[in-house]
Amino acid sequence: MKKGLQIGKQSLSFDKPVYIMSSASIVGPKEGDGPLKDTFDKIVEDATFGKDSWEEGESEMLKETVSLALMKAKLKAADVRYLFAGDLLGQLIATTFGVMDLEIPLFGLYGACSTMGEALSLGAMTVHGGYADTVIAAASSHFGGAEKQFRFPLEYGNQRPMSSTWTVTGSGAFILSKEYGDVMITGITTGKVVDYGVKDSLNMGACMAPAAADLIYQHLQDFERKPEDYDKIVTGDLGIVGKEILCKLLNDQGIDISKVHMDCGMEIYDDVEQDTHAGGSGCGCSAVTLAGKLMNELRSGEIKRILFVPTGALLSTVSYNEGQTVPGIAHGVVIETRV
Amino acid sequence: MKKGLQIGKQSLSFDKPVYIMSSASIVGPKEGDGPLKDTFDKIVEDATFGKDSWEEGESEMLKETVSLALMKAKLKAADVRYLFAGDLLGQLIATTFGVMDLEIPLFGLYGACSTMGEALSLGAMTVHGGYADTVIAAASSHFGGAEKQFRFPLEYGNQRPMSSTWTVTGSGAFILSKEYGDVMITGITTGKVVDYGVKDSLNMGACMAPAAADLIYQHLQDFERKPEDYDKIVTGDLGIVGKEILCKLLNDQGIDISKVHMDCGMEIYDDVEQDTHAGGSGCGCSAVTLAGKLMNELRSGEIKRILFVPTGALLSTVSYNEGQTVPGIAHGVVIETRV
Repeated sequence: MKKGLQIGKQSLSFDKPVYIMSSASIVGPKEGDGPLKDTFDKIVEDATFGKDSWEEGESEMLKETVSLALMKAKLKAADVRYLFAGDLLGQLIATTFGVMDLEIPLFGLYGACSTMGEALSLGAMTVHGGYADTVIAAASSHFGGAEKQFRFPLEYGNQRPMSSTWTVTGSGAFILSKEYGDVMITGITTGKVVDYGVKDSLNMGACMAPAAADLIYQHLQDFERKPEDYDKIVTGDLGIVGKEILCKLLNDQGIDISKVHMDCGMEIYDDVEQDTHAGGSGCGCSAVTLAGKLMNELRSGEIKRILFVPTGALLSTVSYNEGQTVPGIAHGVVIETRV
Repeated sequence: MKKGLQIGKQSLSFDKPVYIMSSASIVGPKEGDGPLKDTFDKIVEDATFGKDSWEEGESEMLKETVSLALMKAKLKAADVRYLFAGDLLGQLIATTFGVMDLEIPLFGLYGACSTMGEALSLGAMTVHGGYADTVIAAASSHFGGAEKQFRFPLEYGNQRPMSSTWTVTGSGAFILSKEYGDVMITGITTGKVVDYGVKDSLNMGACMAPAAADLIYQHLQDFERKPEDYDKIVTGDLGIVGKEILCKLLNDQGIDISKVHMDCGMEIYDDVEQDTHAGGSGCGCSAVTLAGKLMNELRSGEIKRILFVPTGALLSTVSYNEGQTVPGIAHGVVIETRV
């Protein structure tokens, strides 16, 4: 592998790693019924988290997740210099109201469902650069809030095509630090907006797969690595449809990731039992799968190195209704363990 | 002043400055009729910028502004390692479709009308940290798109209270570089979400003033400076109402900024002639005022050091209609000249 900070076209390789001191995940009831239920820190049966609306519920969930991550790292909010966070709602209201009481300087981010990767990337750059000893990276999504934002009122009970995904009600938070830990971020690859002209907002896997393929291809070039150099290459929420497109696009470039690829959206629900169709989605999907299952596997040494590549579908109801395409973006983070 | 990178609670002081190689501003017809008309690079009479919708028009405006900033710096898009950008629309669609063709790795940001400060902060951190030789920081807003997003269809011709502001149709872009230039970023102060419980989305000055006061107070503490150490302390779009509150809040802390304070929202329109009530607002307001008027004054040496503090009102129609308050956030950037 090349040495140095800036490598290739789109990547950074950190000469000093940035450590993940703790991670936390909180999910709603449906996620708590799914195959990953034993990996989450907390499953809340009330999807409004005791609040009056889904949006306030999402804020409460995010706040509790950040607090839990702080508790695990034996830190107070005042010990944290920056918070990098975002969600799917217009103008990031889940984040705004969720983090307000923490009084931590905030960089609000929007990368659609790639936000967890964007937050970890900027958070790691910030710690590595000596700008902070400790930062938090967090992301959240909520099924009720997202359906209201992007699709139809839940009360309509509208039918969903088999290509559609189910927005995860969940939030993940990570404490990044210069202090030594077992699990660490050693590099990042930052994505561009990639548009293949897909216009179907109920087939987001197809919208995002080209961005994932572009990012993974560039990452392997920049780091001069092969897929086998990773125990897992983890996409966020491509689902069944997007996974197929991703593998085909990379195969066309002579790259076979099939042996190491995992998609968080295909892990979080039992698509037959839980009627979730193509899989899970949302910022929370990759955030809670990384904070739970993957961090557990890294901490135990079961896996040694992963490329985490959450992808985002860049649309709003305005852009969609005005006939625009749904471009995608992906952000890659290399996470390794010393165990 | 204290030495070192992390200073005080919320600030960074850059030991090596980050240079602003070029800046560009493009505005719509109303801004082109205002007092700052001679400071903008381009005034476009067609507010849809030749496109079919305001949103697409905003994207086109942003794209042209970034291209212009690149041209002025004699750079191509491929020379730029990262783009830090955002707008006011839900899910950042103006940015997404505006920057797509540039194919520059993107960090999408949402800080409401503070986004220009957020983008310059992260951009400067990135260059200073050696993560990039050159980055772009950009922000945009559009009156038509913002009214549709946040308020009423323009066709209603609804009445606006005197406390309301007029969203600027404009975009600003800055090329930040490690290469020597006359104007430079020497420090930043990053804001927290500040909520004083104001609920009136047509009085955004009142919503944002506490965040500006909090940021300016903390900045002066962190840097051990007084208001007089700046030729100008520049807020983004507090307008007439917000300015009064800001000055009062700081006066209560024993700080008098009245001699050096300037609000971009109060400069960009002639509120009597142009019927804009409390002033201009939107990400574009502070972005084009900095890229034009203020950069001109810095380049000529007329002013030597400013604190640029754009503020954002953190609301969406969902949060507002669900009865939530409108919190604010502000991000501070110290810009100096060697001329």
